[in-house]
Amino acid sequence: MKLYATPRAPNPRRVLMFAAEKGLRNIELVNMELNSLQHKQEAFRAKNPMALLPALELDDGRVLSESRAICTYLEGLAPEPNLMGRDAEERAFIEMADRRMEWHLMGGVINCVRHTHPGLAPLEQPQFPDFGRSQGEKMREAARWLDGELARQPYVAGDRFTIADITAFCALEFARGLLKFQPGAEGMPHLQAFRDRMAERPSSRM
Amino acid sequence: MKLYATPRAPNPRRVLMFAAEKGLRNIELVNMELNSLQHKQEAFRAKNPMALLPALELDDGRVLSESRAICTYLEGLAPEPNLMGRDAEERAFIEMADRRMEWHLMGGVINCVRHTHPGLAPLEQPQFPDFGRSQGEKMREAARWLDGELARQPYVAGDRFTIADITAFCALEFARGLLKFQPGAEGMPHLQAFRDRMAERPSSRM
Repeated sequence: MKLYATPRAPNPRRVLMFAAEKGLRNIELVNMELNSLQHKQEAFRAKNPMALLPALELDDGRVLSESRAICTYLEGLAPEPNLMGRDAEERAFIEMADRRMEWHLMGGVINCVRHTHPGLAPLEQPQFPDFGRSQGEKMREAARWLDGELARQPYVAGDRFTIADITAFCALEFARGLLKFQPGAEGMPHLQAFRDRMAERPSSRM
Repeated sequence: MKLYATPRAPNPRRVLMFAAEKGLRNIELVNMELNSLQHKQEAFRAKNPMALLPALELDDGRVLSESRAICTYLEGLAPEPNLMGRDAEERAFIEMADRRMEWHLMGGVINCVRHTHPGLAPLEQPQFPDFGRSQGEKMREAARWLDGELARQPYVAGDRFTIADITAFCALEFARGLLKFQPGAEGMPHLQAFRDRMAERPSSRM
């Protein structure tokens, strides 16, 4: 299997961290040049017509894209440790938690960065900076809500580590790097402590 | 079980259509007043802190939100007809197809409508009309790509009806109602034929 990814982007990082938690070592990493828009060119569009990273090329040539769908596939390959739920009911509640992280935390920071950062203009055309700043505010609202959740429970989906923690951590790290967002400095101590706990996992350094 | 929904919105419709395809009849429908922002008030926020519809209240009082997570739960309750994949591999490919419909088709039309329609100003604050129009264009690009896919295969995820068809249909119907988007009139005959086939399913009238 080959994973087409790029080191600085948050969605490829989710899949790399997920694979590391699973102990999967048989995935060849293909680093794509984000700045030269290598993933927008025909050669890659033939693999993923959405021209987005990451994408997982299977040994039979089929290509799977969409980070969470790739994780569903990897969970099937390596069921332990379970990160997405053991039955339909648990899968549903973990999916809810993961999607909240995707839409409200990750989506907010990605929209903010892509629409406000001059360096990302080649990736996001046209940019709408006012929309981007508003999305940054919505990300902070979601982060404040998550801080309250993490005051009551150790992990995003409840009492155990799941894919939702990976999504949250990758969103927070992207916000930390590009928006200088420090939850602790904004009065979100539980979110800061969660971020620091996640950063201790070896998978976080993938 | 109680499903909090609203008749005109595309995400609640996805869940209603999914439940109808499953033949699930033990779900009580609670219609929420969108215009009076009933779903933004404390009583509903206690059920779904994201203040979004739909949400499924289980008999034990727990509440599940996020349309696709609700469908995962319903698929567990009523496994046949299978709409989300029989094993991890098929689940992953159907999830990829479904997410493409969510992000690129449904996301585009929802962002367009919410940011450009004066009647939706109470729901989307602040509105960014230029961003909305740009999202409408991106929705059309995704629709053109989908038209090409449907020239080669009968359903969004391949050769059988799945959740991805429900998501695509609900996005198209929302675009038809509010953006006057007619795929046939825009030179997308396969997408128009798909829409018309889906509209013949009894579940589409839920």
